[in-house]
Amino acid sequence: MATTKAPDAGRRSDRSRRAIHDAALALVTEQGYRRTTIEGIAARAGVGKQTIYRWWPSKAAVLMDAFLDLAGRTAEDAGGAPEPDGAASSGGSAPGFPDTGDLAADLKTVLRATVDELNNPVLEAVTRALTAEGIVDAKLGAEFVQQLLDPQLALYVTRLRAAQEAGHVRAEIDPRIALELLIGPLMHRWLLRTLPLTHAYADEVVDYAVGGLTPRA
Amino acid sequence: MATTKAPDAGRRSDRSRRAIHDAALALVTEQGYRRTTIEGIAARAGVGKQTIYRWWPSKAAVLMDAFLDLAGRTAEDAGGAPEPDGAASSGGSAPGFPDTGDLAADLKTVLRATVDELNNPVLEAVTRALTAEGIVDAKLGAEFVQQLLDPQLALYVTRLRAAQEAGHVRAEIDPRIALELLIGPLMHRWLLRTLPLTHAYADEVVDYAVGGLTPRA
Repeated sequence: MATTKAPDAGRRSDRSRRAIHDAALALVTEQGYRRTTIEGIAARAGVGKQTIYRWWPSKAAVLMDAFLDLAGRTAEDAGGAPEPDGAASSGGSAPGFPDTGDLAADLKTVLRATVDELNNPVLEAVTRALTAEGIVDAKLGAEFVQQLLDPQLALYVTRLRAAQEAGHVRAEIDPRIALELLIGPLMHRWLLRTLPLTHAYADEVVDYAVGGLTPRA
Repeated sequence: MATTKAPDAGRRSDRSRRAIHDAALALVTEQGYRRTTIEGIAARAGVGKQTIYRWWPSKAAVLMDAFLDLAGRTAEDAGGAPEPDGAASSGGSAPGFPDTGDLAADLKTVLRATVDELNNPVLEAVTRALTAEGIVDAKLGAEFVQQLLDPQLALYVTRLRAAQEAGHVRAEIDPRIALELLIGPLMHRWLLRTLPLTHAYADEVVDYAVGGLTPRA
């Protein structure tokens, strides 16, 4: 009996987690972060509050897991791995950063994928809600940056260091600053909706930024 | 009698406007944009709701005026004009953009002033509250961008065009994109609080970005 019970319990547990994720994402999209509560998530998911507290220590923790789960599924649907970017965005299994030896081409590949992800309507409302709350709530913002953003930024640093070793980026450039000239413009345009966020824009940003990093003749 | 009455009425009117501005800023700082109401502002300012509706068509309009008034006063206290920047920030009397003929030096002057303004605790909470609400509310965000941000961005475009005419920036560079490599990194760092926002950082951003804009040897 125990051998048949365990898989059933596992399936029930997976179903509950998925229901909790979906409820959390729906509520934060509809009501914003602040008005979303553990009680509300439990009611919407059809589970007891204690089920949520057994798996997650806080509302922020539920939402980060739900967001990573959604971003991972969305990337799978799009046929690719989630890509590094500048928002409380992306995640899932560790995404790679291409290294074909051509820095500008690799950065365009990554930033175009980031554009697609930021423009994806499935992710947009929840990404905006979490980012906006992180902007006014310093503690929450720090959690999002640490959990969601910093691992992505580390991939840029690694790629830029490799370019330095290959002599494609000047030795005195700080990769941690240089990456902000790539993701800062995209995020600024997306967050404030100043102008359309397109592949052509991503390409221009890469060309301007890389032009400032390369060795001088 | 009329000649003495008019200045009194003017003073009362100025006092009421200032009280309304202060109340609006205090409430948005304490409660966020969404929970701030015209009724709440009127009660806190000690005026009737109709007084507010006589002068402003909406809550957003009161807050933008209050913000511009605060930014202008803060800049005066700091001994300078408000500077162009990337947030729902700055304003007051039209700020100039320096043109000494040295593009990098001028951009450092402006971006250092932006760093000071973003780090100013008097402005921080309200700037964050308005920016965060604009991120989730597209209509409000568009109003903030049009009223507060676009006039500042136009100053960067003018300065970058002058640099192009002087042969300091390549002719094929689009100034409207180039300016985003300057303000995007600052705003990204400030909004997400990834790392400290300092003058040294502003200088590095200018050096990297300008390096990508100058004519190639």
